[in-house]
Amino acid sequence: MKKMVLGIDIGGTNSRLGFVDENGCVLARTRMATQAQEPPDRLWARLWDEAQRLWCGLLSLPGERMDWVGIGIGAPNAHRGRGSIEHPPNLGWEIVPFLDLVSEKTEIPAWLANDANVAALAEGRFGAAKGVDNFLLITLGTGLGSGLVVNGSMVEGASGFAAEMGHIPLVDKGRQCGCGRQGCLETYASATGLKRTLLELWAERGGNSALLSMPPMNLTAEQIGRAAEAGDELACEALTITAAHLARGLVTVIHLLSPAAILIGGGLSLAGEGLMAPLRRDVERGLMAVFCGSCQIRLAGIPEADLGIMGAGALAFQGLEFRSAAKD
Amino acid sequence: MKKMVLGIDIGGTNSRLGFVDENGCVLARTRMATQAQEPPDRLWARLWDEAQRLWCGLLSLPGERMDWVGIGIGAPNAHRGRGSIEHPPNLGWEIVPFLDLVSEKTEIPAWLANDANVAALAEGRFGAAKGVDNFLLITLGTGLGSGLVVNGSMVEGASGFAAEMGHIPLVDKGRQCGCGRQGCLETYASATGLKRTLLELWAERGGNSALLSMPPMNLTAEQIGRAAEAGDELACEALTITAAHLARGLVTVIHLLSPAAILIGGGLSLAGEGLMAPLRRDVERGLMAVFCGSCQIRLAGIPEADLGIMGAGALAFQGLEFRSAAKD
Repeated sequence: MKKMVLGIDIGGTNSRLGFVDENGCVLARTRMATQAQEPPDRLWARLWDEAQRLWCGLLSLPGERMDWVGIGIGAPNAHRGRGSIEHPPNLGWEIVPFLDLVSEKTEIPAWLANDANVAALAEGRFGAAKGVDNFLLITLGTGLGSGLVVNGSMVEGASGFAAEMGHIPLVDKGRQCGCGRQGCLETYASATGLKRTLLELWAERGGNSALLSMPPMNLTAEQIGRAAEAGDELACEALTITAAHLARGLVTVIHLLSPAAILIGGGLSLAGEGLMAPLRRDVERGLMAVFCGSCQIRLAGIPEADLGIMGAGALAFQGLEFRSAAKD
Repeated sequence: MKKMVLGIDIGGTNSRLGFVDENGCVLARTRMATQAQEPPDRLWARLWDEAQRLWCGLLSLPGERMDWVGIGIGAPNAHRGRGSIEHPPNLGWEIVPFLDLVSEKTEIPAWLANDANVAALAEGRFGAAKGVDNFLLITLGTGLGSGLVVNGSMVEGASGFAAEMGHIPLVDKGRQCGCGRQGCLETYASATGLKRTLLELWAERGGNSALLSMPPMNLTAEQIGRAAEAGDELACEALTITAAHLARGLVTVIHLLSPAAILIGGGLSLAGEGLMAPLRRDVERGLMAVFCGSCQIRLAGIPEADLGIMGAGALAFQGLEFRSAAKD
């Protein structure tokens, strides 16, 4: 009997769900609009209907019989201990006891945790950090998301909301951040941060760059990376500066936690070696001798489309294991 | 039968040893010069002789019979996994397999770990962080030492040398640090950092202060704290600036790890409310809303003279518990 869990990834715009096996394979998946303005019980009703449709489809396939043993859910601002989603950015909710909604529909055991933390669980169980006890996953997109594993366990801290690396103070009186404070790491080290740096550089220096022929809103880190490879000076310099800022953040984490690996995912990671080469160099330069060579900086392993589902699946499998260990 | 462990704290100048019971009481203690120029096996021979002398003294006392069940050792640059002390600052040693020296003299089980980490163990087992699963201990003296406990376990990371908070990069192109790099947190947030700030302020502004009548070498954080309480402007401002720098370091740790408590010990903590009041204020101001009020900042609980011995004792008791749990 093949054990399967349902993994649900609730996002600000879209939510994804799929069934995951013990090897991390996603055997059926789908996506729907979150419709942030709707109440959360409506979203859960739609997710549940879709999940049952997917499950019936799976059962009708030939092959090994399957058993649906758990449900994992990843969401922004989710609190694992309380089973709630609390004031999620981009969703108009207050504090939602989401696991209570789940248990009204089903007796299948369910777990809920923060989306960035479950992404780290996915990399640790199925991806580029398999078997690694101490690692950091950062996702560089609009902002900087992060998930931390220390001594083999997810770090959530006393508040339940740890691993907000995007908001560590990097530059005194620096750039305005969406969180209301100034100089947070993510205002420099993210896909958006890279664009801000590119435009700031051009504002200071002027000059020519093919990138200026595109609307900044649509510009991607991948395009800036390709321009740098083609020799565009503005692009090269913006990537070098972004790498230097991110390196300071990583040096801080390495001195505090000495992870064996730091995985980098999200849109900015698509900038490629124009980012990764100066990043690795600046990190090594910034470390005390005792840490040199102790931390591998590499690209995240799981494609973004499956990361949330696999993370939620990893959360459910971990929950089931703890439960069975506690029974022994 | 009362279970006792020997706790040994190896320092650059002096080493301390004592017998610790399960409640953290130090029942016999002594201190000796480390004599850093001697080979480590000579130091161990002297420590072992002293330990036996102390033990004989304890056995001759009336009362409950005692059983010597373990040995714990804290030392600078100690690597727990390898049982070695590696290139310790202030000691002229290379890599010393210290636990091998111990096992040549005795079959009593022994554990070795970094001095700052065992200090955190002491606070977690016997002191101001009893029962707290996530906390940070920082010791502000000549430098900034730190020990971290996450999800109830000591953080040593992949290298075995984690929790070097004193060397996180705080100020870009900032003050020269003893580690060879620039702008490390401890060049600002330590007893020495406070003195550097005081003299820098005076160099910029001139003016009068009673503190300038003392040789800076001998000036203590406690004296600066008392001067601030008496209204000395230079002292007040130096403490405020030092608190602001330290606050940025603590805000970083809280965003990453969300500890329930941060304990502050060492000479700088004796500056009192002149430091602690602006520190607490600046930390709260620097946090994202979700972390506000989630972390208590308080003074460390164990007097410095016993901290190393009690930490080494806590390490031994923890080792014995793991061993007996593994046998079950």
